[in-house]
Amino acid sequence: MNNKEYQVRLSGFGGQGIILAGIILGEAVSLYDGRFAVQFQSYGPEARGGASRAEVVISDEDIDLLELIEPDVFLALSQQAYNKYVGDANENALVIIDPDYVTEVPPSSRKVFPVPISKIAREEIGKSIVINMVALGALASVSGLVGIDALKKAVAARVPAGTEEINLKAVQAGYDNAREMV
Amino acid sequence: MNNKEYQVRLSGFGGQGIILAGIILGEAVSLYDGRFAVQFQSYGPEARGGASRAEVVISDEDIDLLELIEPDVFLALSQQAYNKYVGDANENALVIIDPDYVTEVPPSSRKVFPVPISKIAREEIGKSIVINMVALGALASVSGLVGIDALKKAVAARVPAGTEEINLKAVQAGYDNAREMV
Repeated sequence: MNNKEYQVRLSGFGGQGIILAGIILGEAVSLYDGRFAVQFQSYGPEARGGASRAEVVISDEDIDLLELIEPDVFLALSQQAYNKYVGDANENALVIIDPDYVTEVPPSSRKVFPVPISKIAREEIGKSIVINMVALGALASVSGLVGIDALKKAVAARVPAGTEEINLKAVQAGYDNAREMV
Repeated sequence: MNNKEYQVRLSGFGGQGIILAGIILGEAVSLYDGRFAVQFQSYGPEARGGASRAEVVISDEDIDLLELIEPDVFLALSQQAYNKYVGDANENALVIIDPDYVTEVPPSSRKVFPVPISKIAREEIGKSIVINMVALGALASVSGLVGIDALKKAVAARVPAGTEEINLKAVQAGYDNAREMV
C-alpha cells in the first residue's frame, strides 16, 4: 500500500451497525469529500458468530488493486474484536476504542484514543443504537480522514427517513468529544 | 484473477437495495456456504448521482489481494448501470438483466438472462421494494455461485425483524423464475 492510501478498519460485534458505518464512511470521503474510496467486508467460514468488521480504503487516486492488510486507523467496539484484529494494524496506527467495551489494551507503539462511544450514545443522545454514528464522528476527529460536513451529508443520505436528526446529533457528539483528545 | 475466484457485480440505481444485496450475497457464500468472500463498493468523486453498484468476490481460498476488474456475473437493474458497467464484464460473463429496465442490449459473447425481476416483486410479492431479493434469487439460479438455502439463511439474518417472510418469498420467486431459463 503506498503512502497515499489509508486503510481504516471498523470492528465490533453484530448489531452495532459496523457495516453501515463503513458504507457511510466510504460514501462520505468519495461522494462528498472528492476522493476515491473502496469499502469492503471480507469473510471466511470462520467468521460466523465472531467479531464484525468493515474496511474503508481512502486515496487521492483511483484504487485498482487492494491488499487486505495493515489498517492505519483501527476502531474497536468490543474486546473480542480488539483482540482479534489489533495485530493486523500498522505499527503507527491510530486506535480508537470504547473503554466500556475494550478494557484490556496492552502497551504498543500504536496511539490509543479511548472515547466513551457507547456512553455518549446512551447518555447524550439517549439511544444506544446510534453507537456507530458516534464512532464515525470520533473517527473523523481523531483521524482527519473525512470532513465532518462530508460525513454528515453521507449520514443524512443513508439513514432511514425521519432518523436524520438524531443520527447527525450522534455524529457531532462523537466528533466534539474526541476533539478534546487530539 | 485466478480460476478459483469469481467476481459478481450487482448494479442499478439508488434505492433498489443494491448494496444490501451485495452484503447478503457475501454473507451467504461465506457464513453459510463455507467459502471465502470479499464484498466491496468502490467509489470515486464521479459516482455521485450515478449508477449504484456492489461487488462480491467468491473463492474456495482465502482472498489476500483484489483486482477490481472483470466481473464473471453481472446483474443490471437499470439501463444506465448496464451501459456504464457492461464493458467491464468478462467476455464469457453471465449477464442478468431486468427487461423492464434494460431494454437495449447489444449482441455480445456474454450470455444474457432477461429475468422480469421488478415485475415479480410487484406482481408476485406485491412489494416493489423486494426487487433486490428477487434479484439475489435469480442470481443464485443462473450462476450457481450460492446455494438457495445459504442465501435464505443470510437474508433472514440481515433483513429487519418482521420482514423475513416476505423477503424469503421474494428470493424463492426469483430463484424459481430464473430456473426455467437455465
